[in-house]
Amino acid sequence: MSLKAISSKDAASLDKDLMEIGGWSLDQLMELAGLSVSQAVYRIHPPSSGKDVLVVCGPGNNGGDGLVAARHLAQYGYKPSIYYPKQGKNELYQRLKTQLENLSVPFVSDLAVAIKSSDFLVDAIFGFSFGGPLREPFPTIISQIETASIPVLSVDAPSSWDIESGPPEQGPGSKFMPEALISLTAPKPCVKHYTGRHFLGGRFLTKSIAEKYGLDLPQYPGIDQIVEVGVDTEGKL
Amino acid sequence: MSLKAISSKDAASLDKDLMEIGGWSLDQLMELAGLSVSQAVYRIHPPSSGKDVLVVCGPGNNGGDGLVAARHLAQYGYKPSIYYPKQGKNELYQRLKTQLENLSVPFVSDLAVAIKSSDFLVDAIFGFSFGGPLREPFPTIISQIETASIPVLSVDAPSSWDIESGPPEQGPGSKFMPEALISLTAPKPCVKHYTGRHFLGGRFLTKSIAEKYGLDLPQYPGIDQIVEVGVDTEGKL
Repeated sequence: MSLKAISSKDAASLDKDLMEIGGWSLDQLMELAGLSVSQAVYRIHPPSSGKDVLVVCGPGNNGGDGLVAARHLAQYGYKPSIYYPKQGKNELYQRLKTQLENLSVPFVSDLAVAIKSSDFLVDAIFGFSFGGPLREPFPTIISQIETASIPVLSVDAPSSWDIESGPPEQGPGSKFMPEALISLTAPKPCVKHYTGRHFLGGRFLTKSIAEKYGLDLPQYPGIDQIVEVGVDTEGKL
Repeated sequence: MSLKAISSKDAASLDKDLMEIGGWSLDQLMELAGLSVSQAVYRIHPPSSGKDVLVVCGPGNNGGDGLVAARHLAQYGYKPSIYYPKQGKNELYQRLKTQLENLSVPFVSDLAVAIKSSDFLVDAIFGFSFGGPLREPFPTIISQIETASIPVLSVDAPSSWDIESGPPEQGPGSKFMPEALISLTAPKPCVKHYTGRHFLGGRFLTKSIAEKYGLDLPQYPGIDQIVEVGVDTEGKL
């Protein structure tokens, strides 16, 4: 399957449209985005292959998607931990945190230790709105994730990658190639540099929104909130 | 599987706890409730068995669950129609309606005609907060659904049934026995009068909330948002 990519600017505009015209709240969109992430995790690493999943959350909506995914993973029987070094201000993030605390999901403070005791990692640090450059503590965090020996699933984009042009030429993230990627709503242009397993999530677009942004509406099977898509090495995704 | 029932009063208190202590918004809870309803519909009547599903929505949160379910059903490839004779005031309902309109889901005005052209029906009229008696236009609507020849799935409770004591002794609803029922969070006491297929949905309870209300946390399989449960004819559910 070959899917068209959406630029960072268009992805921001699409989100705005969904909320200002489409009647969506951020709570709803994030719930379905995080749910799709949790389904991708389950598809790649079912609980029988390990239950200790470390979810690394950034300060914005990508981090919020990670928090929602972690909640669903806890309900599926995983034992998620959250590393959330810089919490964003939106009150929704605080509520998502409360929901996780009520499920006894731990928030950990030492990333290196957490990586050692985890079976795999969800990178929910930065998504389509990442404009770079990385600021502390994130260069250190990206380096730790980049060199971790456990598999990584990135949400929306491999964190540290430029959304349009892909991995940085040098420094943290320049060798970051997660095992799996879940693009939300539509792939971002940087996926042309990506070579791992690729999923699409966010099953809520309408035909008119897809047309407005020149996107393909993928065929999600059954009730799935995700669909696995190929990587088109011709650069068109 | 035998599950404890939750009274109408406790179900209201539980919802309040989820929102006031648990960090949940109504948008989130309704999204997951509606999603579970859509999964039950898919389980009972996959699109290959008919795509024309009529969702009858009441003025409160049960109707909101129906609106969310209809949106997911449209994404699954069904052709839902909505009968929504009395729209509630919560702005969330207006937004859910907008989301459906953007998917070109029709809101119909003639229930009898809509029933004739539908393969099955979702009864999302009243849930655990129904206190009776039915007021117009609902006695007429319940009679039409009760005598419809298409299968019905009721959300949370068969509409018109007293949440504690079950079907009314006479009049509209007294012979109403939907093919399927999806209880949200926990069965209501009236299920002891229910004899069809029974599902549980709303996979978001925490252990502490379940303990506070003396509920069982059912074993949902895999990533499913629903689980089919038996009806315990001993009256304990």
